[in-house]
Amino acid sequence: MEPRITLVTLGVRDLDASRAFYRDGLGWPMSSVSNDDVAFFRTGGVVLSLYPRHLLADDAGVPSDGAGFPGFALAHNVASKDVVDEVLRTAVGAGARLVKPAVDVFWGGYSGYFADPDGFLWEVAWNPGFPLGPDGTMQVPD
Amino acid sequence: MEPRITLVTLGVRDLDASRAFYRDGLGWPMSSVSNDDVAFFRTGGVVLSLYPRHLLADDAGVPSDGAGFPGFALAHNVASKDVVDEVLRTAVGAGARLVKPAVDVFWGGYSGYFADPDGFLWEVAWNPGFPLGPDGTMQVPD
Repeated sequence: MEPRITLVTLGVRDLDASRAFYRDGLGWPMSSVSNDDVAFFRTGGVVLSLYPRHLLADDAGVPSDGAGFPGFALAHNVASKDVVDEVLRTAVGAGARLVKPAVDVFWGGYSGYFADPDGFLWEVAWNPGFPLGPDGTMQVPD
Repeated sequence: MEPRITLVTLGVRDLDASRAFYRDGLGWPMSSVSNDDVAFFRTGGVVLSLYPRHLLADDAGVPSDGAGFPGFALAHNVASKDVVDEVLRTAVGAGARLVKPAVDVFWGGYSGYFADPDGFLWEVAWNPGFPLGPDGTMQVPD
Protein backbone atom coordinates (compact mmCIF):
# COMPACT_ATOMS: atom_id res chain seq x y z
CA MET A 1 0.00 0.00 0.00
CA GLU A 2 1.62 3.22 -1.10
CA PRO A 3 1.91 5.96 1.50
CA ARG A 4 -0.87 8.24 0.33
CA ILE A 5 -3.90 10.09 1.63
CA THR A 6 -6.07 11.09 -1.32
CA LEU A 7 -8.95 12.75 0.48
CA VAL A 8 -9.85 13.79 3.99
CA THR A 9 -13.64 13.65 4.29
CA LEU A 10 -15.30 15.45 7.16
CA GLY A 11 -18.76 14.16 8.02
CA VAL A 12 -20.71 17.34 8.71
CA ARG A 13 -24.06 17.94 10.38
CA ASP A 14 -25.05 20.93 8.22
CA LEU A 15 -23.47 20.89 4.78
CA ASP A 16 -24.66 24.40 3.91
CA ALA A 17 -23.04 25.83 7.03
CA SER A 18 -19.80 23.90 6.60
CA ARG A 19 -19.50 24.75 2.92
CA ALA A 20 -20.06 28.42 3.73
CA PHE A 21 -17.42 28.25 6.45
CA TYR A 22 -14.68 26.80 4.24
CA ARG A 23 -15.61 28.51 0.96
CA ASP A 24 -16.80 31.93 2.05
CA GLY A 25 -15.32 32.21 5.53
CA LEU A 26 -11.85 30.81 4.96
CA GLY A 27 -11.90 31.68 1.27
CA TRP A 28 -10.97 28.24 -0.04
CA PRO A 29 -11.72 27.60 -3.72
CA MET A 30 -14.40 24.95 -4.14
CA SER A 31 -14.10 22.52 -7.03
CA SER A 32 -16.73 22.76 -9.76
CA VAL A 33 -17.48 19.06 -9.33
CA SER A 34 -19.06 19.82 -5.97
CA ASN A 35 -22.82 19.45 -5.85
CA ASP A 36 -25.71 19.74 -3.41
CA ASP A 37 -24.56 16.63 -1.56
CA VAL A 38 -20.81 17.05 -1.35
CA ALA A 39 -18.18 19.79 -1.50
CA PHE A 40 -14.57 19.30 -2.65
CA PHE A 41 -11.67 21.62 -1.95
CA ARG A 42 -8.25 21.06 -3.48
CA THR A 43 -5.63 21.72 -0.84
CA GLY A 44 -2.17 20.97 -2.12
CA GLY A 45 -1.87 17.24 -2.68
CA VAL A 46 -4.90 16.19 -0.67
CA VAL A 47 -8.57 16.91 -1.32
CA LEU A 48 -10.76 18.07 1.56
CA SER A 49 -14.33 16.91 1.13
CA LEU A 50 -17.40 17.79 3.15
CA TYR A 51 -20.16 15.21 3.19
CA PRO A 52 -23.19 14.77 5.45
CA ARG A 53 -22.19 12.83 8.53
CA HIS A 54 -24.99 10.26 8.34
CA LEU A 55 -24.27 9.59 4.67
CA LEU A 56 -20.58 9.09 5.39
CA ALA A 57 -21.44 6.57 8.09
CA ASP A 58 -23.95 4.90 5.75
CA ASP A 59 -21.32 4.68 3.03
CA ALA A 60 -19.00 2.75 5.30
CA GLY A 61 -21.87 0.80 6.81
CA VAL A 62 -21.19 1.92 10.37
CA PRO A 63 -23.52 3.52 12.92
CA SER A 64 -23.38 7.32 12.79
CA ASP A 65 -23.62 7.63 16.58
CA GLY A 66 -20.66 9.29 18.12
CA ALA A 67 -19.93 12.06 20.55
CA GLY A 68 -17.10 13.88 22.19
CA PHE A 69 -13.52 14.17 21.00
CA PRO A 70 -13.30 12.73 17.48
CA GLY A 71 -9.70 11.71 18.12
CA PHE A 72 -7.94 13.52 15.32
CA ALA A 73 -6.81 16.96 14.25
CA LEU A 74 -5.84 18.63 11.01
CA ALA A 75 -2.91 21.03 10.96
CA HIS A 76 -2.36 24.10 8.84
CA ASN A 77 1.25 25.22 9.05
CA VAL A 78 2.43 28.66 8.08
CA ALA A 79 5.72 30.44 7.66
CA SER A 80 5.73 32.75 10.70
CA LYS A 81 4.18 33.46 14.09
CA ASP A 82 2.39 36.49 12.69
CA VAL A 83 0.61 34.38 10.12
CA VAL A 84 -0.54 31.97 12.86
CA ASP A 85 -2.30 34.87 14.56
CA GLU A 86 -3.70 36.15 11.27
CA VAL A 87 -5.13 32.76 10.31
CA LEU A 88 -6.72 32.27 13.73
CA ARG A 89 -8.34 35.72 13.40
CA THR A 90 -9.60 34.83 9.92
CA ALA A 91 -11.08 31.57 11.16
CA VAL A 92 -12.78 33.20 14.13
CA GLY A 93 -14.10 35.93 11.85
CA ALA A 94 -15.57 33.15 9.70
CA GLY A 95 -17.42 31.70 12.68
CA ALA A 96 -14.88 29.23 14.06
CA ARG A 97 -14.55 28.75 17.79
CA LEU A 98 -11.13 29.65 19.18
CA VAL A 99 -10.21 26.53 21.15
CA LYS A 100 -6.70 27.60 22.18
CA PRO A 101 -5.09 30.96 21.49
CA ALA A 102 -1.63 30.59 19.96
CA VAL A 103 1.21 30.17 22.42
CA ASP A 104 4.88 29.23 22.29
CA VAL A 105 4.96 25.45 22.54
CA PHE A 106 7.40 22.91 23.94
CA TRP A 107 8.63 21.74 20.54
CA GLY A 108 9.95 25.19 19.71
CA GLY A 109 7.13 26.52 17.61
CA TYR A 110 3.99 28.61 18.05
CA SER A 111 0.52 27.17 17.70
CA GLY A 112 -3.16 27.54 18.46
CA TYR A 113 -6.36 25.68 17.64
CA PHE A 114 -9.75 26.53 16.23
CA ALA A 115 -12.81 24.31 15.83
CA ASP A 116 -14.85 24.27 12.61
CA PRO A 117 -18.69 24.25 12.67
CA ASP A 118 -18.70 20.55 13.65
CA GLY A 119 -16.04 20.95 16.30
CA PHE A 120 -13.32 19.37 14.14
CA LEU A 121 -9.98 20.69 15.34
CA TRP A 122 -7.53 22.64 13.23
CA GLU A 123 -4.12 23.42 14.67
CA VAL A 124 -2.55 26.51 13.14
CA ALA A 125 1.20 26.34 13.65
CA TRP A 126 4.59 27.77 12.87
CA ASN A 127 7.25 25.09 13.25
CA PRO A 128 10.83 26.28 12.71
CA GLY A 129 12.07 22.68 12.84
CA PHE A 130 10.06 21.55 9.82
CA PRO A 131 10.34 24.16 7.09
CA LEU A 132 7.69 24.43 4.41
CA GLY A 133 8.61 23.69 0.81
CA PRO A 134 7.91 26.05 -2.08
CA ASP A 135 4.56 24.31 -2.62
CA GLY A 136 3.61 24.81 1.03
CA THR A 137 4.07 21.18 2.04
CA MET A 138 5.99 20.25 5.16
CA GLN A 139 9.45 18.85 4.52
CA VAL A 140 9.97 16.02 6.97
CA PRO A 141 13.13 14.02 6.40
CA ASP A 142 13.05 10.38 5.32
CA MET B 1 -6.11 31.31 4.90
CA GLU B 2 -4.52 29.32 2.12
CA PRO B 3 -6.20 26.03 1.19
CA ARG B 4 -3.77 23.62 2.80
CA ILE B 5 -3.73 20.62 5.13
CA THR B 6 -0.20 20.15 6.42
CA LEU B 7 -0.70 17.19 8.71
CA VAL B 8 -3.43 14.77 9.60
CA THR B 9 -2.86 13.67 13.19
CA LEU B 10 -4.59 10.55 14.45
CA GLY B 11 -4.93 10.38 18.22
CA VAL B 12 -4.19 6.74 18.97
CA ARG B 13 -4.75 4.63 22.06
CA ASP B 14 -1.64 2.44 21.66
CA LEU B 15 1.17 4.18 19.79
CA ASP B 16 3.28 1.02 19.52
CA ALA B 17 0.44 -0.88 17.90
CA SER B 18 -0.50 1.93 15.54
CA ARG B 19 3.09 2.58 14.50
CA ALA B 20 3.55 -1.12 13.81
CA PHE B 21 0.35 -1.18 11.75
CA TYR B 22 1.32 1.71 9.46
CA ARG B 23 5.08 1.09 9.31
CA ASP B 24 5.35 -2.69 9.33
CA GLY B 25 1.87 -3.76 8.29
CA LEU B 26 1.16 -1.27 5.50
CA GLY B 27 4.86 -0.75 4.79
CA TRP B 28 4.81 3.05 4.99
CA PRO B 29 8.22 4.71 5.45
CA MET B 30 8.46 6.42 8.84
CA SER B 31 10.36 9.69 9.06
CA SER B 32 13.58 9.69 11.07
CA VAL B 33 12.27 12.59 13.14
CA SER B 34 9.74 10.26 14.75
CA ASN B 35 10.44 9.45 18.39
CA ASP B 36 8.95 7.47 21.27
CA ASP B 37 6.05 9.90 21.53
CA VAL B 38 5.08 10.55 17.93
CA ALA B 39 5.41 8.95 14.50
CA PHE B 40 5.47 10.85 11.20
CA PHE B 41 4.82 9.39 7.76
CA ARG B 42 5.27 11.44 4.61
CA THR B 43 2.39 10.69 2.27
CA GLY B 44 2.54 12.83 -0.83
CA GLY B 45 1.89 16.41 0.15
CA VAL B 46 0.42 15.74 3.59
CA VAL B 47 2.11 14.26 6.64
CA LEU B 48 0.31 11.57 8.62
CA SER B 49 1.21 11.69 12.29
CA LEU B 50 0.32 9.28 15.06
CA TYR B 51 0.18 10.75 18.55
CA PRO B 52 -1.33 9.45 21.79
CA ARG B 53 -4.98 10.36 21.94
CA HIS B 54 -4.89 11.88 25.43
CA LEU B 55 -1.88 14.01 24.54
CA LEU B 56 -3.56 15.28 21.39
CA ALA B 57 -6.60 16.28 23.42
CA ASP B 58 -4.33 17.88 26.04
CA ASP B 59 -2.49 19.81 23.35
CA ALA B 60 -5.72 21.38 22.17
CA GLY B 61 -7.01 21.73 25.72
CA VAL B 62 -10.13 19.68 25.12
CA PRO B 63 -11.49 16.65 27.01
CA SER B 64 -10.28 13.38 25.53
CA ASP B 65 -13.64 11.68 26.09
CA GLY B 66 -15.28 10.54 22.95
CA ALA B 67 -16.87 7.43 21.58
CA GLY B 68 -18.53 6.06 18.52
CA PHE B 69 -18.19 7.27 14.96
CA PRO B 70 -15.42 9.86 14.82
CA GLY B 71 -17.16 11.61 11.95
CA PHE B 72 -14.44 11.51 9.32
CA ALA B 73 -12.71 9.17 6.90
CA LEU B 74 -9.44 9.13 5.02
CA ALA B 75 -9.39 7.89 1.45
CA HIS B 76 -6.66 6.08 -0.42
CA ASN B 77 -7.37 6.09 -4.14
CA VAL B 78 -5.73 3.73 -6.58
CA ALA B 79 -5.60 3.25 -10.33
CA SER B 80 -7.74 0.12 -10.78
CA LYS B 81 -10.30 -2.17 -9.18
CA ASP B 82 -7.70 -4.88 -8.76
CA VAL B 83 -5.53 -2.61 -6.68
CA VAL B 84 -8.49 -1.79 -4.41
CA ASP B 85 -8.80 -5.49 -3.60
CA GLU B 86 -5.04 -5.86 -3.17
CA VAL B 87 -4.81 -2.93 -0.77
CA LEU B 88 -7.74 -4.19 1.31
CA ARG B 89 -6.04 -7.59 1.55
CA THR B 90 -2.78 -5.95 2.61
CA ALA B 91 -4.54 -3.93 5.29
CA VAL B 92 -6.41 -6.93 6.65
CA GLY B 93 -3.18 -8.91 6.62
CA ALA B 94 -1.65 -6.14 8.70
CA GLY B 95 -4.41 -6.45 11.29
CA ALA B 96 -7.00 -4.00 9.99
CA ARG B 97 -10.68 -4.81 10.32
CA LEU B 98 -12.52 -5.10 7.00
CA VAL B 99 -15.48 -2.77 7.50
CA LYS B 100 -16.95 -3.08 4.00
CA PRO B 101 -15.70 -5.31 1.21
CA ALA B 102 -15.20 -3.42 -2.02
CA VAL B 103 -18.29 -3.07 -4.20
CA ASP B 104 -19.31 -1.13 -7.29
CA VAL B 105 -20.67 2.16 -6.01
CA PHE B 106 -23.30 4.62 -7.19
CA TRP B 107 -20.78 7.24 -8.31
CA GLY B 108 -19.32 4.87 -10.87
CA GLY B 109 -16.31 3.58 -8.99
CA TYR B 110 -15.38 0.67 -6.76
CA SER B 111 -14.64 1.06 -3.09
CA GLY B 112 -14.36 -0.63 0.29
CA TYR B 113 -13.40 0.37 3.81
CA PHE B 114 -11.03 -0.87 6.47
CA ALA B 115 -10.58 0.33 10.04
CA ASP B 116 -7.14 0.92 11.55
CA PRO B 117 -6.30 -0.21 15.11
CA ASP B 118 -8.29 2.71 16.58
CA GLY B 119 -11.24 2.20 14.29
CA PHE B 120 -10.36 5.15 12.07
CA LEU B 121 -11.87 4.55 8.65
CA TRP B 122 -9.93 4.30 5.42
CA GLU B 123 -11.84 4.10 2.17
CA VAL B 124 -9.88 2.36 -0.58
CA ALA B 125 -11.28 3.44 -3.91
CA TRP B 126 -10.97 3.43 -7.65
CA ASN B 127 -12.72 6.46 -9.14
CA PRO B 128 -12.72 6.64 -12.93
CA GLY B 129 -14.20 10.15 -12.80
CA PHE B 130 -11.28 11.65 -10.91
CA PRO B 131 -8.03 10.38 -12.43
CA LEU B 132 -4.85 10.34 -10.39
CA GLY B 133 -1.95 12.53 -11.45
CA PRO B 134 1.60 11.26 -11.98
CA ASP B 135 2.39 12.01 -8.33
CA GLY B 136 -0.62 9.99 -7.17
CA THR B 137 -2.74 12.99 -6.18
CA MET B 138 -6.36 13.27 -7.24
CA GLN B 139 -6.99 15.77 -10.02
CA VAL B 140 -10.21 17.54 -9.18
CA PRO B 141 -11.02 20.45 -11.48
CA ASP B 142 -11.07 24.05 -10.24
